Amino acid sequence: MSIRRVGSGARMSQAVIHGNTAYLAGCVAREPDSKDVAAQTKDILEQIDATLAQAGSDKSKLLSATIWLSDISTFDQMNKVWDGWVSQGNTPARATVEAKLAAPRFKVEIGVIAAI
Amino acid sequence: MSIRRVGSGARMSQAVIHGNTAYLAGCVAREPDSKDVAAQTKDILEQIDATLAQAGSDKSKLLSATIWLSDISTFDQMNKVWDGWVSQGNTPARATVEAKLAAPRFKVEIGVIAAI
Amino acid sequence: MSIRRVGSGARMSQAVIHGNTAYLAGCVAREPDSKDVAAQTKDILEQIDATLAQAGSDKSKLLSATIWLSDISTFDQMNKVWDGWVSQGNTPARATVEAKLAAPRFKVEIGVIAAI
Repeated sequence: MSIRRVGSGARMSQAVIHGNTAYLAGCVAREPDSKDVAAQTKDILEQIDATLAQAGSDKSKLLSATIWLSDISTFDQMNKVWDGWVSQGNTPARATVEAKLAAPRFKVEIGVIAAI
Repeated sequence: MSIRRVGSGARMSQAVIHGNTAYLAGCVAREPDSKDVAAQTKDILEQIDATLAQAGSDKSKLLSATIWLSDISTFDQMNKVWDGWVSQGNTPARATVEAKLAAPRFKVEIGVIAAI
Repeated sequence: MSIRRVGSGARMSQAVIHGNTAYLAGCVAREPDSKDVAAQTKDILEQIDATLAQAGSDKSKLLSATIWLSDISTFDQMNKVWDGWVSQGNTPARATVEAKLAAPRFKVEIGVIAAI
């Protein structure tokens, strides 16, 4: 099966597509200092939409999602944005746990696997 | 490849099956307040058995498992139940790390990927 | 699709290969007490190279990687080794978060999915 990469850099790729499956990198918000958890989640999901499009997929084809929150007490704030974004009838398997992220300004990180 | 969902809700699905691969949501125990780590693990693995059955798979076809413990010092308690459950000769790749979960009453969360 | 296992034990397998996709277990360093984060990362990546070879793959076919650091402030130390190891032009999707690991002596754990 073929391997194709989107946004490939020296350390990682934003997505790697293998056959009919796309693996996306853990995504964090742009300009996180100015954003609360809801705004970071919104920004991340916009980036995921764009990366899925480049990979030839979209959010209705999400297979699984892993969500890391730097403070699990922000679960509801993240979910409010997630619930408004996710494709109804096509929701992925999901796991959400607390973890400190690469820098304290990052409050949310989301990684997904999608079908092509 | 086809996509099929099991236990699909507005936020997530309990399992998403893509071709011959099933991605299960991170699973936590039912009625966790009354259960210690061993009992939560047992309850989770029962739920995983049921979801795998609905997906057309079973524990002998597990590919990978991610286990999150809210307190890593309970590693041995979780493993005692895991070791008695997992299909001998058919064990998955596995990673176990500590993470706070959606609520403090949840001590264990397990997500798996399985073949169909 | 066929399922094949590498380094299969009573609790987990070092890798499970399903069709053209290999799922590797979360890998930690051997003799961790004598190793700092950089040395643990180097040791882990050597083990991943060996397991990928047994699975019929190699690091140029990595699809995704999850990296857990027991102290996220060691991000740069881990990355220095990672950046020198990963196959340029063929980098995987990646997520790195902080998590306590099975024992305090383990500073790094890495799990990967690779194409065959």
